[in-house]
Amino acid sequence: MKNDNFVIQGDICWSTSLTALKTMPDAFLVCVEGKSAGVYPQLPQRFAELPLFDYRGKLVIPGLVDLHIHAPQFAFRGLGMDMELLDWLDSHAFPEEAKFNDIDYARSAYGLFTEHLKRSSNTRFVVYATVHVPATLLLMELLEESGLVCMVGKVNMDRNSPDSLREYSAASSLEATREWLGAADTYTRVKPVLTPRFIPSCSDDLMRGLGALRREFNLPVQSHLSENRSEIEWVRKLCPASGSYGAAYRDFDLFGNDTPEGGPTVMAHCVWPDENEIALMARRGVFAAHCPQSNANLSSGIAPVRRLLLAGVPVGLGSDIAGGTSSSVFRAMADAVQVSKLRRVLLDNDDKALTLEEVFYLGTVGGGVFFEKSGMGRCGSFEPRYDFDALIIDDSSLATSGWRTAPFALSIRDRLERTVYLGDNHTIAAKYVQGRLITA
Amino acid sequence: MKNDNFVIQGDICWSTSLTALKTMPDAFLVCVEGKSAGVYPQLPQRFAELPLFDYRGKLVIPGLVDLHIHAPQFAFRGLGMDMELLDWLDSHAFPEEAKFNDIDYARSAYGLFTEHLKRSSNTRFVVYATVHVPATLLLMELLEESGLVCMVGKVNMDRNSPDSLREYSAASSLEATREWLGAADTYTRVKPVLTPRFIPSCSDDLMRGLGALRREFNLPVQSHLSENRSEIEWVRKLCPASGSYGAAYRDFDLFGNDTPEGGPTVMAHCVWPDENEIALMARRGVFAAHCPQSNANLSSGIAPVRRLLLAGVPVGLGSDIAGGTSSSVFRAMADAVQVSKLRRVLLDNDDKALTLEEVFYLGTVGGGVFFEKSGMGRCGSFEPRYDFDALIIDDSSLATSGWRTAPFALSIRDRLERTVYLGDNHTIAAKYVQGRLITA
Repeated sequence: MKNDNFVIQGDICWSTSLTALKTMPDAFLVCVEGKSAGVYPQLPQRFAELPLFDYRGKLVIPGLVDLHIHAPQFAFRGLGMDMELLDWLDSHAFPEEAKFNDIDYARSAYGLFTEHLKRSSNTRFVVYATVHVPATLLLMELLEESGLVCMVGKVNMDRNSPDSLREYSAASSLEATREWLGAADTYTRVKPVLTPRFIPSCSDDLMRGLGALRREFNLPVQSHLSENRSEIEWVRKLCPASGSYGAAYRDFDLFGNDTPEGGPTVMAHCVWPDENEIALMARRGVFAAHCPQSNANLSSGIAPVRRLLLAGVPVGLGSDIAGGTSSSVFRAMADAVQVSKLRRVLLDNDDKALTLEEVFYLGTVGGGVFFEKSGMGRCGSFEPRYDFDALIIDDSSLATSGWRTAPFALSIRDRLERTVYLGDNHTIAAKYVQGRLITA
Repeated sequence: MKNDNFVIQGDICWSTSLTALKTMPDAFLVCVEGKSAGVYPQLPQRFAELPLFDYRGKLVIPGLVDLHIHAPQFAFRGLGMDMELLDWLDSHAFPEEAKFNDIDYARSAYGLFTEHLKRSSNTRFVVYATVHVPATLLLMELLEESGLVCMVGKVNMDRNSPDSLREYSAASSLEATREWLGAADTYTRVKPVLTPRFIPSCSDDLMRGLGALRREFNLPVQSHLSENRSEIEWVRKLCPASGSYGAAYRDFDLFGNDTPEGGPTVMAHCVWPDENEIALMARRGVFAAHCPQSNANLSSGIAPVRRLLLAGVPVGLGSDIAGGTSSSVFRAMADAVQVSKLRRVLLDNDDKALTLEEVFYLGTVGGGVFFEKSGMGRCGSFEPRYDFDALIIDDSSLATSGWRTAPFALSIRDRLERTVYLGDNHTIAAKYVQGRLITA
């Protein structure tokens, strides 16, 4: 047997559906060849010879999935938060991204970014890079070495962008994308994802060319959708025939496929979709990456996650660094609950607030399905044959009087809730991805 | 000279008004007899003999002020967050608070609470205890020993509360309050604050008696105001003659004085005040403790802080543990900015969002003025004669490529913004209160 065959003992918890958690105190989680071989109250005899790692008293949960993060924006997270989206892009995002034309700067900045991700609560990431092919390949190399599982996109943008970042033409952008795709297939844990920045920054020719590349290489797609009302109005003017922002992506063949099963596409934000756009996402299996902290920071609004879920849209969570300031998907879970309550009370509507169980599902299985649809393994659960992505949480620092002993002992479910609200990187005792221990 | 005469060198920052920060890189902050003796770009000769503590490269800011925290609720912070206010009180707050009838439980729970506050970003606290006199005095003793500066209230509640917590009658509640006040004047850094829980849990007789105690002992007052729409409706029925929730407190003489200067009163939440209530608060100098995280967690809403400020209501920030999950006033600052943006965009109104400068003022000087009005010293600033309450922040762990060197060096203002959004207790290198180093 190989090194990635072992057993973990601890207080184990994972989602079995959008609304249900399975918890097993002091149980055994078995890893065979990098995949879960199940969770057992007693260790079965056939695994008795495997190395046993003792995490008794600690929480063991699936690794968290970040469906939307901008790698080059890590350098200015937590800055410019008094601005709105378009001002903030001009003053912070675009100038910083332009620096990644310099491969030495990229090595330094992406090195810090990768080290940060290793220490974070997340095990999988769908990542925006920049337009620059060498820096994007370097980022992929660093992430591959980290052991994390990632989808990374070289960004396309050929209009409505500053000279320092704008690609010269649709043709040159597409040529650079082919060059990148040709060099990007050497990694095992990091795969390319097509990344038109968003419709306002991509010409029709570029979008059509990317739609053709998607079919040719059978690639997943990420972009931004309906984040901000003035942005939506802009897209309406840019693509008057499409009828909606989402339909514009569809018309360029960058919005899933004709069936809910095919053509993995993830759209960040979806704060202001109308009913038609929601129905289109559901019909074509387009994922929404809900980024609640970013949507507050950039004065975007609160995404109608309950409506998306009821309509059958697949939903996961995103940190959206640096629109969001925290990279933790725990924080995204807590924020998702909080803003769903504000949405309900301020808009006086009947949408029920999201629950802990629901946001935990979204941050594990919900985002994990996007990796599965993209052919990168199942993740987000401890059911057999899921990739062994696991967090070990030492929540003892969050404790208060009597929390381990009757009558005040907390359930695993309550310890999970408290970790979602109060945990930080310091509470992560260990992190495994595909059975490998990630050490930062 | 005494031990609390010394000099600190670092990157110093404080609020000079609601909208302005003063920043002085690599400057000298002088402490004489526990008070600020000013900030200097070069150290004046007359202070050259004082011990110099070298915090170069670190941020030095005033200690943060938490205007609203429930000490007994610390034990269940981050739990029950899927509930609304009244359910959560019944299932979590009241049963936990009832445990403080047991002084041994109180010693354990308040011991952990006090240790946590010592490690936190805050130096001053306005604290709810429980109805229990011995446990409340014990909490005051523990806080006094900690070196933190606090106002602590024995809670009054004689109706609409579970049997395990409800006081038998207005008379017995008032008698217990007198007993507590008699024993509570032995501390130097911890002072009593009258604490009717909120109008629904206090009979008219009790409220009138507390109003009389307030005048007799010249005491500050804390309570809750207009947190939740069903609560407001309830108060309207309980006090039909008053006209508003705030006016009901006024009618019991527990809502400031006839001038904006006198009778310090702080009211937590103020999420749904009408124009009359806002005007009444301004006229009588009643403080609002804005608790944005709690107001989201408990589905209360978003307080109209901009309107309160424009009307002249004094405003500070509160963690509202355990309605809020984080005890950090940094988090309250970030949340205050974020929810002010959501309020604007969701309610489509013209109230400008709060800025970093504004929330930093609210979390330092804004709350600090309540201590000053209560005769507990000036705090929240480094101007001369303010109490020397200071945080030393090591923000190097928040750094990214080139942050200390041109052309990527961050300003002190930007480092402060990043600390507000990303800092946690681990970034606090040291904390001083009234010139004393607090060590946890």
